[in-house]
Amino acid sequence: MAKREKIITFTSDFGTSDGYVGAVKGVILSICPSAMIVDISHDIPPQDVETAAWCLMNAVPFFPEGTIHLAVVDPEVGSERLPIVIESASNHIFVGPDNGIFYLAIGQKRPLRVWSINPESIESPVEIISSTFHGRDIFAPAAAMIANGVDIDEIGTKMNPRAIQRLEIDATFQVDDNTVRGKVLHIDRFGNLVTSIPNNFADKILDGEIERYPVRAPVPNFSSIKKGQVNFIQGSTGFIEIASFRNSAVWLTGARKGSFVVARLKRGKE
Amino acid sequence: MAKREKIITFTSDFGTSDGYVGAVKGVILSICPSAMIVDISHDIPPQDVETAAWCLMNAVPFFPEGTIHLAVVDPEVGSERLPIVIESASNHIFVGPDNGIFYLAIGQKRPLRVWSINPESIESPVEIISSTFHGRDIFAPAAAMIANGVDIDEIGTKMNPRAIQRLEIDATFQVDDNTVRGKVLHIDRFGNLVTSIPNNFADKILDGEIERYPVRAPVPNFSSIKKGQVNFIQGSTGFIEIASFRNSAVWLTGARKGSFVVARLKRGKE
Amino acid sequence: MAKREKIITFTSDFGTSDGYVGAVKGVILSICPSAMIVDISHDIPPQDVETAAWCLMNAVPFFPEGTIHLAVVDPEVGSERLPIVIESASNHIFVGPDNGIFYLAIGQKRPLRVWSINPESIESPVEIISSTFHGRDIFAPAAAMIANGVDIDEIGTKMNPRAIQRLEIDATFQVDDNTVRGKVLHIDRFGNLVTSIPNNFADKILDGEIERYPVRAPVPNFSSIKKGQVNFIQGSTGFIEIASFRNSAVWLTGARKGSFVVARLKRGKE
Repeated sequence: MAKREKIITFTSDFGTSDGYVGAVKGVILSICPSAMIVDISHDIPPQDVETAAWCLMNAVPFFPEGTIHLAVVDPEVGSERLPIVIESASNHIFVGPDNGIFYLAIGQKRPLRVWSINPESIESPVEIISSTFHGRDIFAPAAAMIANGVDIDEIGTKMNPRAIQRLEIDATFQVDDNTVRGKVLHIDRFGNLVTSIPNNFADKILDGEIERYPVRAPVPNFSSIKKGQVNFIQGSTGFIEIASFRNSAVWLTGARKGSFVVARLKRGKE
Repeated sequence: MAKREKIITFTSDFGTSDGYVGAVKGVILSICPSAMIVDISHDIPPQDVETAAWCLMNAVPFFPEGTIHLAVVDPEVGSERLPIVIESASNHIFVGPDNGIFYLAIGQKRPLRVWSINPESIESPVEIISSTFHGRDIFAPAAAMIANGVDIDEIGTKMNPRAIQRLEIDATFQVDDNTVRGKVLHIDRFGNLVTSIPNNFADKILDGEIERYPVRAPVPNFSSIKKGQVNFIQGSTGFIEIASFRNSAVWLTGARKGSFVVARLKRGKE
Repeated sequence: MAKREKIITFTSDFGTSDGYVGAVKGVILSICPSAMIVDISHDIPPQDVETAAWCLMNAVPFFPEGTIHLAVVDPEVGSERLPIVIESASNHIFVGPDNGIFYLAIGQKRPLRVWSINPESIESPVEIISSTFHGRDIFAPAAAMIANGVDIDEIGTKMNPRAIQRLEIDATFQVDDNTVRGKVLHIDRFGNLVTSIPNNFADKILDGEIERYPVRAPVPNFSSIKKGQVNFIQGSTGFIEIASFRNSAVWLTGARKGSFVVARLKRGKE
């Protein structure tokens, strides 16, 4: 049977025109020529670890088990922050800086194993490890070596899985008899406002408000939303979103990340 | 003989930093690990079906027969609009929403066969089909199943090829003894104005005008265009373009999509 | 043994939404279905050959020997400028316009061999070669034919390696007893200013100035830089950079490409 290609996904805040993304891909393919590199994003806003974590949370669960996820948004490169490898309970491998970038993608279950990468065990065409580009000099070769079947114990030292940096998003919401209150967790490219209110509230919500802008009753799809209005809608990531049709909810409402949302709940018998 | 990898091209208006593109790629590779995913664009302006159709028209004809083209610009997701598969006369397979996005890429000949996808026949790691992200929940798994060799009749119901949504671009032009008149169909990243006048007029045109800005005689290449001027030039997509050299014709002329162009024709014996 | 896939990297100023990138990829895969196309960048600013050359310089050296690098930033397409193939001393193959785009990536050693491509020897699904899109009509098929093992002598005519267009960046610096002076060669996505001063000056520099803004002493990593300050730091491409932490050195200093940098050197015994 043909050996299946090993998938390495790649997420960064590098943009592409400086050549940093190309350098990382070159290192990977020099070490593991059969790797299948899958671009997730290189347009994460510079140094925005939280957006990268959100992006990975939305993408990682859909990849096959055993996929290696390389992600580099790394403002503290070259400092004390550790270079790590995580093996999650769902059998995904993560390679990157220990700054919380993988925290949302790992899921609820504690990671099985975590290693701190030993830079001196990295074999790479890059001979001297820079202090400003570990994506090229440590993380890419580590990911490629793992794709080649190198035992992670040979390039890293096991550490306590509970010791990794956390990145909590405040996905809390408050319910009382009449309302559910949450806030905006993320604003996507379409201007949809992803709230912290779970999708299962959709059939209980009457209407609501955000930044003094009225939010209409939940709708089954975008095209049911009337011109100039915004409505609640079940989102594709498990949370209720506030959206418009052929317009941008963020422009219409003036909401921002963190804006408070309040939704009135239907009465029991209504 | 080694089984050739199946190409799935991927075009969307998702941007990359929200993770939606990653999710779609993950679903494809979970279902068809040997698929070769080829990014065409994820920078289509949000919900701009016409730009996506133009982009696909320029790219699709150059791929090998049998290529699967997944394209998702889908403002009406979750409504009555159908999820479809098209097999074109030129043997390309298209998977996406029935909103005209493939209409220009299909070419002049009527598609051979069209199916409406039955969502319940989709087998995917995503268990519940959302009403806001059919790219991940219906189109990606459909494309991957087809790449795996699943018979399209097993996931869709044949429909009348004439029933698909059309997306006509008004590529008309008017000729009289002295002039040919058309309009701007598309403005590309370089600021070139793609007109509706076919390339075969190039050797008949003397000069012209757009938005009261003079357009000089056709030139054989960009570098023949003088500073501050715009000229006609044969375009790479079959239509005459208005271009500048080391400058942007759209900035110089102030033209927009739909702007009228008039070109004076050479007299018979000139 | 399985035949290894041939890597073709692809760099352009096409953006993606016009479909030009898709067209090039389609041509490559029609001619060489087993090619592994690796995107380096399609976000090079339009017609900015120098940025493309810088990008390639940072990426190319990390790819395996034998990699084919297709790069198309080509303002003079269709003019007298030659379509070329370069085989570098480090065994990389470059395919694109003869406008200096590969000059920095080739490295210090003179290229082994250079060919001028004969357009009539190109076999491609595109039948008529346009005068505005050689990326699709000449360079992509040439790269794919080479990936297929076609002898370059069959598609090109050898030319004098010294005759290729040069693209020199003025990476000079002046040293005297007290100072080293250079200038800004490149500004990256993070706002870091890459100077022309080599990294080996890092331990000799005391502090400096750029555009009347003080530049503090060299630091080992970004996170050592104090709020609102910019410092010297060893860069990942061999040159000293001026950087900030969680901020942009270009915004703080107002520097531009070409801005002069002066650094005071430590005294001998200090």
